Amino acid sequence: MGIINRLKTIRPEVDHAPKINLVVVKANDPEVLTCVEQACKEGRVFAYLIDSRDKLSESLKDYDLPADSYEIVDENDDQQASFKAVELVRNGQGDAILKGHLATGKVLKEVVNRETGIRKAQTLSHVAIIANPKLEQLLAVTDGGLILQADENNGKVIIDNAASVMKALQVEKVKVALLSCAENVIPKLPSSVLEDKLSQELSGLDPDVIVEGPLSIDLALSPASAKEKGYNGQIKGDANVLFAPDIVTGNTVSKSMLLFGDSQMAGVIMGAKVPVIITSRSSSYEEKYASILLAQILMLDQ
Amino acid sequence: MGIINRLKTIRPEVDHAPKINLVVVKANDPEVLTCVEQACKEGRVFAYLIDSRDKLSESLKDYDLPADSYEIVDENDDQQASFKAVELVRNGQGDAILKGHLATGKVLKEVVNRETGIRKAQTLSHVAIIANPKLEQLLAVTDGGLILQADENNGKVIIDNAASVMKALQVEKVKVALLSCAENVIPKLPSSVLEDKLSQELSGLDPDVIVEGPLSIDLALSPASAKEKGYNGQIKGDANVLFAPDIVTGNTVSKSMLLFGDSQMAGVIMGAKVPVIITSRSSSYEEKYASILLAQILMLDQ
Repeated sequence: MGIINRLKTIRPEVDHAPKINLVVVKANDPEVLTCVEQACKEGRVFAYLIDSRDKLSESLKDYDLPADSYEIVDENDDQQASFKAVELVRNGQGDAILKGHLATGKVLKEVVNRETGIRKAQTLSHVAIIANPKLEQLLAVTDGGLILQADENNGKVIIDNAASVMKALQVEKVKVALLSCAENVIPKLPSSVLEDKLSQELSGLDPDVIVEGPLSIDLALSPASAKEKGYNGQIKGDANVLFAPDIVTGNTVSKSMLLFGDSQMAGVIMGAKVPVIITSRSSSYEEKYASILLAQILMLDQ
Repeated sequence: MGIINRLKTIRPEVDHAPKINLVVVKANDPEVLTCVEQACKEGRVFAYLIDSRDKLSESLKDYDLPADSYEIVDENDDQQASFKAVELVRNGQGDAILKGHLATGKVLKEVVNRETGIRKAQTLSHVAIIANPKLEQLLAVTDGGLILQADENNGKVIIDNAASVMKALQVEKVKVALLSCAENVIPKLPSSVLEDKLSQELSGLDPDVIVEGPLSIDLALSPASAKEKGYNGQIKGDANVLFAPDIVTGNTVSKSMLLFGDSQMAGVIMGAKVPVIITSRSSSYEEKYASILLAQILMLDQ
């Protein structure tokens, strides 16, 4: 089952939920508009489309957005458009942000602005949700998109952000595997030392979240390997969250599951007042649409 | 095609090559003996089986090793058995080492011993060879098994070791992708800075080896992504070697290709006078057998 159907199966009420207000920064992009069109037609979203009004109106002739499903906010400048998107959220008019045709950094700059931004947690982090045919559960991989290197401070927020997404996806006990190359602490491998510390500090803090590591990916995600190696922890190949020690590992593991594992992905940045969707140019239609669906699911519990 | 058939297709002469002398440290292990039995029966190897003679002789009753295809070296102690294995290589009697039922560290300790060891390069590194149905070429992943963190010094040897394996596998221009999360240098991400430096320093040094990075895994291994993103380098989704900046990334990428990508793997440690095969308890029969085959192929060019 693909990620879209998996999300809908987990939270079927999403198909009858009230519309969310989706703020699309620099909306004039064919792939973005195709996704927004579908979400508007399905009654999932009301869209604030921020871009040059003239050019965007021209483009919209090719789409079939119901007239009452969107509003154009006229702003061509990338930074100003990002500012306006964040302002809409700050004023309570926006429930999620979708990045269109501009650099991620411009959007995030306004999101984290100390005066006018919408930061909620100290740290923003990226959560990728992956549907893989060999995994019964949806898997969160974090952080493969935003935070370069996990440390003791941001590590806790990264885990917290991912756990909150998994809770919205109805996981009762969120099993967070701290990814390493093996299950033992290697003193000369700083990430394994950090992970040991994190798992000790977070153990039992939230009874609904199990944090365990260091763990290799086979112990984290393959019940057969966990059994074969006689691994004795609470996670036995059934992790819901894969915590990567740095962005290279996180990015590589999610992309390799997409490239070689017939997976599909949705992604959001968590830690702001609303989910921020930062899909890249190369991300598929499914990925963009599933990310909007995920944002809508996250709103169900607000 | 699985890894065993791929290796045989690339170097068909391996089926008619002279026997190699395989030194098996602590050989009394059912999975190891099963592989060694097949390799002996096929005339690929003559095996020095190091272990307690009494116990091993008892075990061997269950196997069908031709009498002239092996010799038992009586040594039960792990460290002493490792010493004897290295000694056989030092004396010219061993062409490859296969780790049996003991910790990797004990074997490597003797391999790298400054007085009595068989170190060739300054750095030993692990090279995993992966056959994946979505990749036309065999892929080397390095280092996911031995070196914790790449740096400027060991980085060059890691690349060199992997390139020499790929050359034995008949790759004319070895394309080495230095793995990161994107194709740009991120000043706050030390691995991307290192990879930029390595690619500049190694560029053109060996006309048969292209070193390029930082690169994300999709640019390195997916021609479609490389095209979509308009990537303009010499590697366009067709890398032969994936250089991981640390052991967590290397270990995770090769294991995730095995777990989710229907891949098969062979693995050797390079940098000693002979290849050292360090398969883990959880590695499959194919992996162990393919690694012996790979060691035999590496001997073809000696």
